[in-house]
Order: sequence, then C-alpha cells, then structure tokens
Amino acid sequence: MHDLDEETLDRPHEECGVVGLWAKKGSGVEVARNLFFALYALQHRGQEAAGICTSDGTLVNIHKGLGLVSQVFNEDNLRPLQGHFGIGHNRYSTTGGNHIANVQPFYIQTLHGPVAVAHNGNLTNATVMRDAMMSRGVGFISTSDTEVITQFLARPSMNVRADRPNWEARLAHLGEEAEGAYSLAILTREAIFAMRDPLGLRPMCLGALKGEDGKHTAWIVASESAALLTIGASFIRDLKPGEIIRIDDDGPRTVREPHERAPKPALCIFEYVYFARPDSHIEGQSVHVVRQRLGRRLAQEAPVEADIVIGVPDSSLVAAQAYAHVAGLPYVDGLIKNRYIGRTFIQPSQQMRKNQVRLKFTALRDNLEGKRVILVDDSIVRGTTMGPLVSLVRDGGRAKEVHVRVASPPIQHPCFMGVDLASHDQLIAHRMTVEQIRAHIGADSLAYITRDGLHAAVGEGARPGMGHCDACFSGRYPVDVSAFGLDDGKLQFESRKRGED
Amino acid sequence: MHDLDEETLDRPHEECGVVGLWAKKGSGVEVARNLFFALYALQHRGQEAAGICTSDGTLVNIHKGLGLVSQVFNEDNLRPLQGHFGIGHNRYSTTGGNHIANVQPFYIQTLHGPVAVAHNGNLTNATVMRDAMMSRGVGFISTSDTEVITQFLARPSMNVRADRPNWEARLAHLGEEAEGAYSLAILTREAIFAMRDPLGLRPMCLGALKGEDGKHTAWIVASESAALLTIGASFIRDLKPGEIIRIDDDGPRTVREPHERAPKPALCIFEYVYFARPDSHIEGQSVHVVRQRLGRRLAQEAPVEADIVIGVPDSSLVAAQAYAHVAGLPYVDGLIKNRYIGRTFIQPSQQMRKNQVRLKFTALRDNLEGKRVILVDDSIVRGTTMGPLVSLVRDGGRAKEVHVRVASPPIQHPCFMGVDLASHDQLIAHRMTVEQIRAHIGADSLAYITRDGLHAAVGEGARPGMGHCDACFSGRYPVDVSAFGLDDGKLQFESRKRGED
Amino acid sequence: MHDLDEETLDRPHEECGVVGLWAKKGSGVEVARNLFFALYALQHRGQEAAGICTSDGTLVNIHKGLGLVSQVFNEDNLRPLQGHFGIGHNRYSTTGGNHIANVQPFYIQTLHGPVAVAHNGNLTNATVMRDAMMSRGVGFISTSDTEVITQFLARPSMNVRADRPNWEARLAHLGEEAEGAYSLAILTREAIFAMRDPLGLRPMCLGALKGEDGKHTAWIVASESAALLTIGASFIRDLKPGEIIRIDDDGPRTVREPHERAPKPALCIFEYVYFARPDSHIEGQSVHVVRQRLGRRLAQEAPVEADIVIGVPDSSLVAAQAYAHVAGLPYVDGLIKNRYIGRTFIQPSQQMRKNQVRLKFTALRDNLEGKRVILVDDSIVRGTTMGPLVSLVRDGGRAKEVHVRVASPPIQHPCFMGVDLASHDQLIAHRMTVEQIRAHIGADSLAYITRDGLHAAVGEGARPGMGHCDACFSGRYPVDVSAFGLDDGKLQFESRKRGED
Amino acid sequence: MHDLDEETLDRPHEECGVVGLWAKKGSGVEVARNLFFALYALQHRGQEAAGICTSDGTLVNIHKGLGLVSQVFNEDNLRPLQGHFGIGHNRYSTTGGNHIANVQPFYIQTLHGPVAVAHNGNLTNATVMRDAMMSRGVGFISTSDTEVITQFLARPSMNVRADRPNWEARLAHLGEEAEGAYSLAILTREAIFAMRDPLGLRPMCLGALKGEDGKHTAWIVASESAALLTIGASFIRDLKPGEIIRIDDDGPRTVREPHERAPKPALCIFEYVYFARPDSHIEGQSVHVVRQRLGRRLAQEAPVEADIVIGVPDSSLVAAQAYAHVAGLPYVDGLIKNRYIGRTFIQPSQQMRKNQVRLKFTALRDNLEGKRVILVDDSIVRGTTMGPLVSLVRDGGRAKEVHVRVASPPIQHPCFMGVDLASHDQLIAHRMTVEQIRAHIGADSLAYITRDGLHAAVGEGARPGMGHCDACFSGRYPVDVSAFGLDDGKLQFESRKRGED
Repeated sequence: MHDLDEETLDRPHEECGVVGLWAKKGSGVEVARNLFFALYALQHRGQEAAGICTSDGTLVNIHKGLGLVSQVFNEDNLRPLQGHFGIGHNRYSTTGGNHIANVQPFYIQTLHGPVAVAHNGNLTNATVMRDAMMSRGVGFISTSDTEVITQFLARPSMNVRADRPNWEARLAHLGEEAEGAYSLAILTREAIFAMRDPLGLRPMCLGALKGEDGKHTAWIVASESAALLTIGASFIRDLKPGEIIRIDDDGPRTVREPHERAPKPALCIFEYVYFARPDSHIEGQSVHVVRQRLGRRLAQEAPVEADIVIGVPDSSLVAAQAYAHVAGLPYVDGLIKNRYIGRTFIQPSQQMRKNQVRLKFTALRDNLEGKRVILVDDSIVRGTTMGPLVSLVRDGGRAKEVHVRVASPPIQHPCFMGVDLASHDQLIAHRMTVEQIRAHIGADSLAYITRDGLHAAVGEGARPGMGHCDACFSGRYPVDVSAFGLDDGKLQFESRKRGED
Repeated sequence: MHDLDEETLDRPHEECGVVGLWAKKGSGVEVARNLFFALYALQHRGQEAAGICTSDGTLVNIHKGLGLVSQVFNEDNLRPLQGHFGIGHNRYSTTGGNHIANVQPFYIQTLHGPVAVAHNGNLTNATVMRDAMMSRGVGFISTSDTEVITQFLARPSMNVRADRPNWEARLAHLGEEAEGAYSLAILTREAIFAMRDPLGLRPMCLGALKGEDGKHTAWIVASESAALLTIGASFIRDLKPGEIIRIDDDGPRTVREPHERAPKPALCIFEYVYFARPDSHIEGQSVHVVRQRLGRRLAQEAPVEADIVIGVPDSSLVAAQAYAHVAGLPYVDGLIKNRYIGRTFIQPSQQMRKNQVRLKFTALRDNLEGKRVILVDDSIVRGTTMGPLVSLVRDGGRAKEVHVRVASPPIQHPCFMGVDLASHDQLIAHRMTVEQIRAHIGADSLAYITRDGLHAAVGEGARPGMGHCDACFSGRYPVDVSAFGLDDGKLQFESRKRGED
Repeated sequence: MHDLDEETLDRPHEECGVVGLWAKKGSGVEVARNLFFALYALQHRGQEAAGICTSDGTLVNIHKGLGLVSQVFNEDNLRPLQGHFGIGHNRYSTTGGNHIANVQPFYIQTLHGPVAVAHNGNLTNATVMRDAMMSRGVGFISTSDTEVITQFLARPSMNVRADRPNWEARLAHLGEEAEGAYSLAILTREAIFAMRDPLGLRPMCLGALKGEDGKHTAWIVASESAALLTIGASFIRDLKPGEIIRIDDDGPRTVREPHERAPKPALCIFEYVYFARPDSHIEGQSVHVVRQRLGRRLAQEAPVEADIVIGVPDSSLVAAQAYAHVAGLPYVDGLIKNRYIGRTFIQPSQQMRKNQVRLKFTALRDNLEGKRVILVDDSIVRGTTMGPLVSLVRDGGRAKEVHVRVASPPIQHPCFMGVDLASHDQLIAHRMTVEQIRAHIGADSLAYITRDGLHAAVGEGARPGMGHCDACFSGRYPVDVSAFGLDDGKLQFESRKRGED
Repeated sequence: MHDLDEETLDRPHEECGVVGLWAKKGSGVEVARNLFFALYALQHRGQEAAGICTSDGTLVNIHKGLGLVSQVFNEDNLRPLQGHFGIGHNRYSTTGGNHIANVQPFYIQTLHGPVAVAHNGNLTNATVMRDAMMSRGVGFISTSDTEVITQFLARPSMNVRADRPNWEARLAHLGEEAEGAYSLAILTREAIFAMRDPLGLRPMCLGALKGEDGKHTAWIVASESAALLTIGASFIRDLKPGEIIRIDDDGPRTVREPHERAPKPALCIFEYVYFARPDSHIEGQSVHVVRQRLGRRLAQEAPVEADIVIGVPDSSLVAAQAYAHVAGLPYVDGLIKNRYIGRTFIQPSQQMRKNQVRLKFTALRDNLEGKRVILVDDSIVRGTTMGPLVSLVRDGGRAKEVHVRVASPPIQHPCFMGVDLASHDQLIAHRMTVEQIRAHIGADSLAYITRDGLHAAVGEGARPGMGHCDACFSGRYPVDVSAFGLDDGKLQFESRKRGED
C-alpha cells in the first residue's frame, strides 16, 4: 500500500487510540455504538486497524479488522457486540506489521475469567517480560507487547485470596513489572479498568454520560477528551500517572493511587506538537492554545524580515497564524492540501515521482508570487518533505524568499515509548546541523523553536506538577532504554534523576 | 449508509469529476495511472463511484466500481487498463441511486465502433431525448442521462459519409439536441473528445504533459485545473462554452467553435462558492482569491460589532479570514472538524442524535468564551446544520454573541443542471425570511452577501465576457426548466434574454 | 482460474439453465426463493454466473453475479427481490468471457416498459441481427446474443395497436427473425413468457405448484423437469418447439402455436448423452432410462471378451451398468472421483502436471488388478482425458486389458447452437480414425455406439414426431451455419430437407 | 448458513483432514502447492475452514480462512507460503463455532522456537489439561483442544538439556498427558513431526515423492492415503498407534515406538462405514472393498424377498451393489442426488420445507414403479432423512414395498473422540427399538448389520493385531469418558480391559 502520508511527507507516525465504556445495566446506552463513535473521534491516532470488545458480564463479544474504523464496522458486525460495557482500540501498526494477529483488543480466557486489553504506548522491557513468560511455558501468537500484557494478566495471583479474580492486585503487579509507556483499557467480566504508566507518557482521561434525569448513566475513559465530546460525554479529569481506575455499576473509583515516591510525570510533549487533536484538553489546557503559544514563541525567538506567513496544512496553521500575529505580518493560505487524499494502493507514475508532494499539496501563486514567505511547520522528522515544499512555494508559488520556521526543536533521537518516529540514521537533525538542513531543503533561512521555548509554551497553561518527556529533542529518556542498544554516549537515562527531584 | 456529510450537515451536494488523457503512442506515459491520480485530485467532486476506460486504438478496457477512487482501484485492476488514451469519472449519485448500472464511464459498441462517455452535468431534456430514442427502439439499462448521451452517439450519421465514423458530426448533432449542463470526456477508437455545453455551465480545462525533451507528450482535459497540477501537467486554457475538442497524436484541436450567436456564458457560480478546489483556476482566476473577495465584500456589506471572526471548516475559512481582515478583527479558530470523518455505515445512538453536529465539529472554548463571535459560512442550504453550529459556539464555546455571515446569497431555488441542492420545500430560504432564519438558527444577527456583491466578487477577476448561472439565488434559469413542473411563477426562463444580450 | 473439469478432462462444456415463475398475487409463494432453488437444481447447466429478476407488476428488481448460485445469493440480496413473478438464469460463459456485463438476465427499459430476458441457446444469426440493430442506432454493452434478443424486444411494434405493449406480437416477430437455438424466459410488467425455437433445440418444460386447497397457485417454466421436482412442482408438459406461452394470473396459455409447416423437431441429442440430469424427463422419457438403453445398445453393438465392466464417474455409470447387464459381466467400481473437486485458482505443481487426471480420479486396484476391463464413457470430445484414464486403469489399477466403449458416436463437428464443444481442430474424431484414437489413448480396443444405435436408443421412448439434432456426429446441421465459415464440404445445411419431411 | 447436508440429511458429521510435507532443500518440490492439493483430496473430512503453514527453517508463514480449501487459497495468498516444509488442515467445526480463532493450524512462538499444530481428533481430557495450564498462567484465545496441545508444547522441558529444543521429549510428554483421539502434524523450525494417539483412533499414513532420479525427495504424512495418490506420492505405511515420527532432510524416522504394554488399537470403525474416501487404504485394506464386504454380509444376515436393490448416493452405492450381487437381484439407480448441492445461505420456502429431501434427491420412477425395493444405506444417525427417503421411493417412485437395510449397526451412543455424531437424545436408536424405527420411517422392513458382522467385514482384510473402536454401537469406550457426564450405566470404560488383552 502506498501511503502518501508516509512516503511523501515528513510526519512522525501516529500512535494508538484507546477507549473504554461502562454503562449502568438497563441504562439503555448503546455501548458498542458509542465505542464506535469514540474510536471515530480518535481515528487520527491510528488508521491501520480497529477493534471493539464488549460484555454483559457473562458473554464476551469481539470484532476487529484491518482498516479505518468506518471500514471495519458496519451494522451487521456491530449488532452482535451486545453488552453494557466494552473497550475499543485504533491501531497504528509498528513492529510486527499489519497482520490481523496484532490487531487489538487482545482477548483471552484465563484462570480468572476472560480478559481483553487495549493498549496505547510501548513497553520498553517487553522482550524481557516476554522471555520470562515464555520460560514459564507461555506461547505467543503475535509479536505485540499488548499480548505480553494480556498474558501477564493470566498469571495466577500470588499473595491473593484464590476465591475471586483480584484484577486490582494483578494490575498493580503489572505496574511493578512493566516499564515504558502504557495507557490501558481492560475488560473483565466484573469491571473495566483503566491504567496509566507511572510517568504518564501517554494521555488518558475520564468522562461521563448523563441520562435524561441528569444523573450519570455511563462512564468513559479515552486517550483524548475529544472522544468524550463526540459522544456527548462530559469531561471529568485526566487519569493521574500511575493511577488504576475500576469502573462498574458503582461508577469509577481509584484502586491504586500513584506511588508517593513516583517519578515526575513525563507526558510525551509531542502530543502537544502534533499527535493530539487541537480540540482535546490535556493537563488542564487546550492543545490548540498550546500550539498558538508555540507559534507566538517561535515568532519571538526567530523573527525574520518577510511579507507574509503561511503554514503547512493542517496541523501547522494555528502556529503560523500566531506567528503572523506576533510578527505583525499577514497570515495567508499558501499551500492547499487535497482533503480527500489518503491511502491508495496505486503507485505514482514515473513523471509524478519526481515531485510527489504535488499529489498532496498545491501552492497558491496568487498569494505567494513575489513575496518573502515565512513557512511554519510543526516539526521536521526525516526532512524528506520540507525540501519539496520549499521548492513548491518558490517555484510553483514564485515566492521571492522562503524562510522556514519550525514550532518544535530539532528531533535528534528516536522514541522508544510508542512513537515510531524513525531510527537515528533517518532523523535529519541527528545527521546534520541546522545550517546543513537549511541548505538541504533549499530555504533562505531556517530556525527551530528552542527546547526552553517549547517547555515554556507547554508548561505555561498546564496544571502544577506536570512534566514532559522530550527525549526525542534532548536524548534524556525518562526510562531505561539501554535494551535498544544506544551506546553512542548521547543518551542518558533520566528516570532516577527525575524521581529524585 | 449514514453519510455524516449529508445527514447532519447543510452542504450542497457534490457533482461529478471528469478527466480525459491522450498520450502519444510510445511516449511511455502511464495513462491509467495518470487518470487515477487525476481522479484522486477531483475526489471532492464525487465520492460515490469511480471508473476508468482506456484503449490502445483497438481494444477497449474498463473498470468501475462503487466507492472512493482509492477504494475502487488497486494495482491488480489497474494493470489490465492498457492503452495510450483513456477517460475517467468520479460520480456523485443523484437520481437512480447508487446502483452499479449507473456508474460511469458508460461504454457501448456502436455501428461506428466503441464509444465511452464520462459526463458532468445534467441534461434538462434527458427525458424527452430518452423517450424519442425509446420510440426508435432503443432499450436502456439505467436511468442515467449519461446513457442517453451514449446511446445518442450510437445513432447512424445522417448527411455524413458512411465510410468513416464521423464522431465530430455526431457530437455536433448531440450539441444541437441536448439541453442543460454537460462537460463531457468521450473515448473512441480514434481519438478522445471533450465538449462543453453552450452555456459552459460546468467547468472543463485543457493541459499538457511535457516529456524529458520539453515537448508535449500527452494532453489532458479535466473538470478542474487542480487535477493538472497533481499529475505535473501544465495548464493551457479553459474549454470555451460550446467548444468541442478532439485529441489524438496530432494534439488537441477544436473541431467545433462556439456558435457566433451563442448565449452568454453561464458557469455555475456555486463552483466559486463551494464546489471547486481553492487551488483550481477557472475563467482565468483563482478560486481561492474569489473566496477572499467574497469574505471582504461580505465584511463591507454586513459589518457587525464583535470581538473575533471564525469560519466553518474547511471551505469557509478563507472567507472568514478575509472578513476579519476588512473588519479589523482577530481571525481565530473556533470550530475544529474531525479530519477523518467520512462515510460510515453506523447510525448514531439515541443520545448522540440530539446533537449530531458534535460528531463532526467541536468548539474551541479557549478562543470563544465570553466573546462576541462572527461566524462565517459559505452557504446555507437546508438550514439543518447552522442552528446546531450556533448552539455549539454559544453553549459549547460559551460565546456571548453569535453573528452569522454567509458568503453567498439566500438559496431559494433548486438546481436542475447537475447539482442536487434540494427541492423547493427543503430550501430554508424558500420557506423563510432572513429574520425567520435568524430566529430559527438562534443567531444574534444574520446577513448574507448580496447577489450584486457575489457577482462583483466573482466578476472582478474573470476574463472578459464571462457570465454566471445564479439560478439557485435568482430563480432565473439559463435553460428551459419547465419540464420540472415549476409553476409557482417565481421562475423565469432566462436563456433567450441572455442570448439577446 | 484453473478448472479441473475443463483442463484435465474431456467433457463437452455445459450450456445454461433458465427458469421462470409466476405466482398468483396473494398466494404467498416466495418467488425469489423458489427461483433460487430451481436454479440450484439446474446448477449443472452453468456454473459461471447466476441472476434473478422479479417484479410485482410495478417495480422490477434484479440481482446477478459471478459464481455458483449458492455463492451469488444470500438472504441479504434475496430479500429485495420482491414480487410475485420472476425469471432466473444460470450461465455457462461462452464468447465474451466471464465479464459481469454478460451475466443474465438482461434487463432494460423500453418504450413498452421494462423487459428482462433469460436465454439458453445460441443464435446462429446473432451477428446479422446485431449489425442490423446497430445500423438503426442501438449501442450494445456486451457481446452476448441475449442482449441482441433483449434490444430486439425494445423495437417499436409495427402493425400493432400502439395503446398497449403487445409483447406477444413482438415475440412472434423475434421468432421470425432469430435463427438457431433459444429457449427463453421473459419478464415484463404484465406477464412472463416462455418460448422455444421452432426446432426445439434446447429443452424447456412447464409445471405448477399447488396450494393447500389443491388448486394451482403458481406456474413454472424451466430448462429441465428436475427443477420442478426440487421445488415441489408437478410436471405438466414440455413446451412445443416454436411455441410461445404467456403466464399471468389466468395461468399459462399458448399465444403462438408452432407453425403448421414447421421443420421437424431437432432437440440436441447431447442432452440425453451428457447435459441433462438423469432424473429429468424430456420428450416424455427419462434421461436415465435413455442412458440405460445406450449402454445396452453399446453392449450389443460392440461386445468384447472381458472380466469386468466399469464406467467413468458419474455420468457414464448407468451406461456401464447396462452394458454389464447385457454382456453378462460383473459391473464394479473401478474409478473413484473426488466428490469435492471443483474450480480452484491454484495451478498444479510440476510433478502433478504429468498426470493431472489423478487430481480428480483414482483407480481401485482391488477391483481391477489382473482383470480384462471394459471402460465405458459417455463421450470423447478432445481426447485429452481418455488416454490418462486408460493409463490409470492399466498402471494404477494393474488391469490386464482395457477396452474402451463409448456411448455416443465420434464427435466430428462443432456445435453452433449453444454448446461450446470445441473447434474442428480440437475434436479428436475430426482428426483421427477410430483406430488412430485407440492407439492414441493406449486402449486394447475402442468402439463407439453407431449413430443408428444412438437414434434408436433415444427414439425408442420418445413421444411420436420427435427428432434430434446430431450435427456434432453427422455434420448435418438443422440451421444455416454458413456464417461460421465451414467450407470443407463436410457440412450440409439440413433444415430445408427436414422442413420438407 | 443453511447446510443441506446437515439440516435435511441424516449423516454423521465429518471430522478433520491433516497433512504434513517435508521436501529436501533444493528439491524443487513446491511445498505449499502440494499441501493445497493434498488438502483438496481430503476436503471430504472438513469443509468449514482450511489452513497451511510453511517454513524454510527460519521464517514461518501461515494462511488460513473459513470455507473450502479452494475458497481459502488463491495464487496470491499461496505465493508467500514459501519454504521446503509445512503442514495443512481441513477443519470441520465442532464446539466453539466457526470462528476464525478456531481455525487450524495453530501457530505460536515458544521458548523453544515457533511451533504449529494441525490436529484430527478430540482430547477427552482437554478441559483438565486446559485448566491445569490456566492455573500455571496461560491464557487461551480459543476453546479449541488444538490450542491446548499447542500451548502444552510451549512448556519448558523438564529433565531435558536446555541447549536445544527437544521436541521429541515434549511430544512424548504430550503423549503421556493427552487422552482421547489425536492424529497430529506438527511444524517446528527443525523438522515436522507426526503423531498418533496410543489407540490409533484416527488414521494417519506416510508416503514419499520421488524425483526424476527415482530417489525420494519429499515425504508426506496425511490422514488418508488418497491424499498421497492425488499429489503423485507413493504409499509407505500407516503410522502405528502411539508412534511419533520426525521428518527432516534425513527422511522420516520413528522417535517414539508404541509402548510395549500399549492398549489394543482402536481405530474408529466409522472410518470404514462412512468417513474415509473409498479409494483410501487403511490398515492394509481398501475402504471400498470393506464396504463391498459390508454389503455382502448385510445381504447374508438380512435377506428379504424383493425385486431390486438400490442405495442412497453416494456412499452407500457400493454396499447396495454388493448386497444385490449376493441376493441375486438387479442393482439399479433409484435415487439421484444433485451433484452441485452444497452449502447455501438461503432457507427453503414454506412449501419446500415439507419435503426438504427433494432439494437433494429425486426418485427414478422408471426404475422403481411397482417394484419391491431394498434400499441400502450405510448408517442411520438421527433418523431424520430415512423417513423422507422411504416416502420418496414409495410415493415419488411408486415402489410397491420399501425394505431398508443398513450397513452398520444401530448407533446408540455419542462419540467423544472427534466425531460430532449427536447427543444421546438425538440418536434415534438410543430412543427407539428397531421395530419402532421401522414404523417411524415407514419402511416395510428394517434390518441392520450385526456388530459381529461389522467387525467380521472390517477385520477380514485388516493387518493382524488391528482393533476398532465401536463405542457408538456398543457403548464400550476405549478411553475414560466419565468427564462427559454419562451416568446412565450403559457406558463402560473399556481401555483397561483392552490393554490387558
């Protein structure tokens, strides 16, 4: 499959979207249908595959498949997904390819009853855990770390009364063993659970649906608050890093608080830069507003004489507008994106391959001709798209000058916590200086926001006590990533230091 | 199928996209592949079905199916589409439903050899022509007016030398009989033809691909110039209303010029308002720039005291920005649209149905709260979406005031020339006054651009001699639409008057 | 697609199955469901595609697709096929390939209302008729002669009162123009019609369903009586050659009797030899019983000293049993056929290709070893299978001698009336003498039944006045086949002579 | 899905087909293609799903799906199944439904490397083994006992040197733990293994392919020898009950011989009666020949005055012929079966439901009318089909008398070893005496072969030392089936006694 987003453009890959919903028995809330539309709202977090698993406390039903959520589900396969609670998942395929065996939720029968898991993130010690479980005699059908989590939950409970399935204890145990990033929605026969890793690397929030009488009839956990708005649920709060929540007919309750000596939170700062929907709220602030602040800060840090400001659609437009506002320059549309572009199985022909960026973007010459243009983008990863875009603005748009401004710092390090950015060698800022990159992309000038600027823009509106993982910019990983064989001296394991803060 | 665009939103329906390509034999241009990407660029004009028909002058190959062009085609079914010329079509289903029998191109064997037709528009005398052909003994497999055109071309040529298939004469004959809107791409064994109706109701333009040596190796006709850019072709010119072009290895040549007593052109003015891509050029001007002018004009005609200006994504944002510029107010993002929304087979659940607009839009409260907001939209058709959007801005966004400004005049009349707007009864501006609409949608104020303002904004940059159909606003139809039974005295057949200008 | 039946075996191709059903309005007979099971019973006559078209007298519904009838239809696509009458078709693809455009029934809108046609046979003057209609301006979507018939019915009626759709006159007109083989089921808004060509080349019969009260509630026409039995209908009679029947709520009535100077009937004698189900009755006799007579006759005409008699499963077993009975030899199973064999997309591997007959047959050595074996087959067409079968019996079964006996005469001439036997060059008996064939297949002896023997066996039980086309054996065609370019002097156009009998 | 075989007919369900193939590296044998055709030959053993798993010693490839083997595989999905060894499976769905999760082969990653399992049979202690493994912390994705076997093989090897994956020891361990019926083909990175349970309840045999030079280039194990013939392999021998074979480039070798105190073999005697293909050899004898002996024996044990003998197609025809031979009566075809019948999604209509047997069978009145008929069937399970068949022969065929003779004893007990016969309550011979059954089916007389007769017919040609499970007739189960809650005193656990023989 020829993915124009991946092949021709320089965007970090998406991750996954996770959702869980419990409706009071008899409330009439259509659980599978609501899960579907919640996944629909989280489609930007993963377009490879989707799945929904529901239960009425006795039977468990599951349907999953490859493709967009709107392709995977229809009324015929949604109908059998009966029950008053369930979980759902949008997948972006990472390792293991897009085989059906890797599609989530993972669902197994265990000693303690059925359990299904939907996971956003990446365990940094998945191999260690998998090997340990294999040594105990467990076979795995996939290469997914989500299967590792799921089979971990099948373990007999030690130090636990055997007369009931103590999922709380088992989840706590998982929290002690698992390292890295995980936001989980878990279905059992008795309850749904939601859980974030102690660093809170991936977002997850809690909301509620109200019935006709104004009382809560259902509770939802989701990767982003935009999913809540879509189904008409109200936002309650973010899950705390390290928190485990149980939801059943008694509503949500915290079954494990974050550890008192927990490390400082380290939410992936790229959620603000690119991943999350602008209409989502994280850590008490609007993603859109953070992006405005990034644009403003960028204008202050890296001004340049020019006539107009344009952005790369769609995710960079808000930063471009803010930049223009601070710079006192007109913001105009300079690049138009084909709204219907998407995955196609068809390869471009020879004459198109020279300039594939045209398949996705066109330049508005009427706005650009003869102008000194500031082109704002949210990030540069591999650097394969910015060059063609600069050419497009200069040649197609006949701009006089093109000054590139980037609303995030140079990406110099890979991510091991669930974002398939690229390897060291593929990251242009790992291989080149800023000046080299400028020359490579053919811009008249190039500047990135500083790391301090990024943190300031993000931190300004966040709730007190928040912290962020910026390892892709700084190389300071909040968890031990030595398993990934990075021995070039640039990486530092930051988690202890943070924990000591 | 639950189409969120149709069910929940108030947008005029799309029409169709048409494309034709002739590559010199031996040029190496991959015709079917280029047709695919041209259709890909015209996807916004029709998402119901797609088809491509190619030929090498002997064999004719065709593949068509229901769905997006990226769903209909894959490398396996593209491969057999051999040949150095072909035509393609994106369909928006109107009457006849979305049956496969109605999918274009239509392809038949005739006395004169094979012929395939791709059509954008609507014949206003299709029933009369169809009945006449049925009386001569022709049976029809579909209800499509494109089949009427295709079977018309199968007729024996009168007054024509019988020794060769005189397609030019037959197309000219078609031009004498057919009434209404049609932009056609036609494939025969000898050439491809392109043709516009005498009023030029639907757009169509001509472009060329250059080879390594800088010489033209292929020519393309397409509904919009954006399709040319996408495949790397250069724009040559628009087809003239009433023109017939033949393309073969000798390049394009006009085989019928517009009649000297031709009526004044009447391009659908809604192409500027909504249909066309902003990066397309029509009549010598950029659609994007026209939309800027519409926003500016709207600000001049209908100012209001307010704090910020926002637009309905995506098609209204440029007008909103231009409005803000003239009004001296900040333009901000106020509504976020789910970029992955699209067709789904799943019906919303009960609690979602109350406010379906949330499935597609969310309000950015950070930007809206406490503000007096000007909300710019490009058009209001049935009025089913604007009310919920105003509520969303007011309740979800906590705006203090919401002033709606519309960049096109009230739509009071149906279209019979290929745009499935709605019937009289469904058009809110047919049933209500502006004040009644304001109350209905719950806005603090409501104003539309004037018809004069619309014509001024469109006409300012167009080539001399252009004219536009604004029947949906004015009720003055450029063709005889009496067949559609409109006897309410409001409609006037304008074509003669225009012809006399 | 690798069709083991076609590639590895020497069987004449199948033709088509046709069915029509009219149920009295309000009778409660589920028309589409009954048509489905009737087609199911006629599956042996065509496995490429299937279709059903129904009507309630106002709307017409149709569904058709490629594959077995059980693959084409499911409850979801059967449900919309409402109405109290309809027609159906099983297709064996001949010219034109297996494109969906060729799948029957053909359905068009005409001057006289909708008409749908299901056809078994082959028009020998299809090209002439098609050219004439093209000259009148009709375009064709397919290469099927069934479309020629369908469009013919769209013609304006000459010499007919214009106030009603006189289908009877139009069908009679068709009967005057069409030459060759056709058994038709035709759906209009007013009635269903059934029609056989004047020679009665293809079979067709009439039956009825009884309601609870013992009265007829529905009438059915079908290619074979076995379809009647399957849905619980009783057999009424065969259609006469040249007869046209109309069925509506008044029941069936003959609207055109055969012409008094009609040619002698010429039912395809191969229906008895191979095509028809053994449990069908044609011309008043059981196909199974005719095959018994063929086996007996063969034994009388071509005895040989041997130990046992075996047949090629499944169609030749009855003749083999009858041969054994007359010969006074034991009949035993010698070859086992894989019952689940069928179409597969997988090509055999290299080592299998040497002996593909093993994919379908195995030899029972326990029954064959050391024996002198008489192997009975119903026919030899291209001669590609009999050689491997003889080897299988001799080498795999370790038979001492293998004597081949064939229950039909040598096939020396192609069929142009709807059976895709093979071309002259492919027919082994056209190229070789019997002795050469014997050597070619490696048999110890080879004998065919005589043409007189065949006619005697068939004629013994048939109703008086019946006659049969044996052109593939005799080269005496009952219709003019000169259009097919057979000028080798061996063919004689027999129809006049027969007409004079 | 409406399965005419299941709903309308009284046949025991099929089981599964298993195959494994190892080709010498570089031999050029196309492994996946050969596995496909071997499964094709075993299609009668399971039509619900199919799968193939191959390896080159490093990578493992798998494809599986629901449907016939010809529906599951095409050249596109066969191509990636690279490697010089592999296993395959045809599934008949039993408990767990036809979910894709239950389709074989099962393939997992284990401590010892990848392992894939194809299984024919049923573990009688699957629940016990599954519970034990769950208690150790293994979660299961399905309800299949094959997953139990597969996960069992993932266990750490006790008493085994840790430096290599000692599959032989682990398979031997499996053999100690597993109870019931299992014939297995197992793929690992190093070898393929084949294994039969100690009782040899399900058949499995070994064969070889020869190269151009006459040397063995590949070895195959399969459920039935007919699969060997189909791909051109020669039969070597049956696997011994309890034997484990390893096949790699050194050819096949026995890695575990049957235990010296092994119980007496107990091959399912129903393989002879119905399951196996007639052209397969089991225990040194032809299944076809056994069925002849059954018919002869039946004629000796249960003669009756009559005019003709007929059989129920297809599986009973050979017994009917043999009966006729002994009885000195003519054998004729009396019932015709629709050869294209198969699974359909369409329910019969009301008027068809009364006599569904007609959808599959018709009576040949010409052969039956006025005759005293002996109708031979191979077995009666639920008794739902025989009544309608007797009616069909009597009413449709107008037979004077109908005497039913059954070539197996009354089935009074369910099977727990992999054949989904029916529950106690469904077995007509469990609820009724022979006389009651006769009255129920409306026959003039009814007789079954005796158990002694069955054993004599089967045992006559089998190799010395063979024994057979006849629990469905006798209630004497060769394994402990107490887990299935049969406490009616009729069942006896026979295995110890047999072991002591």
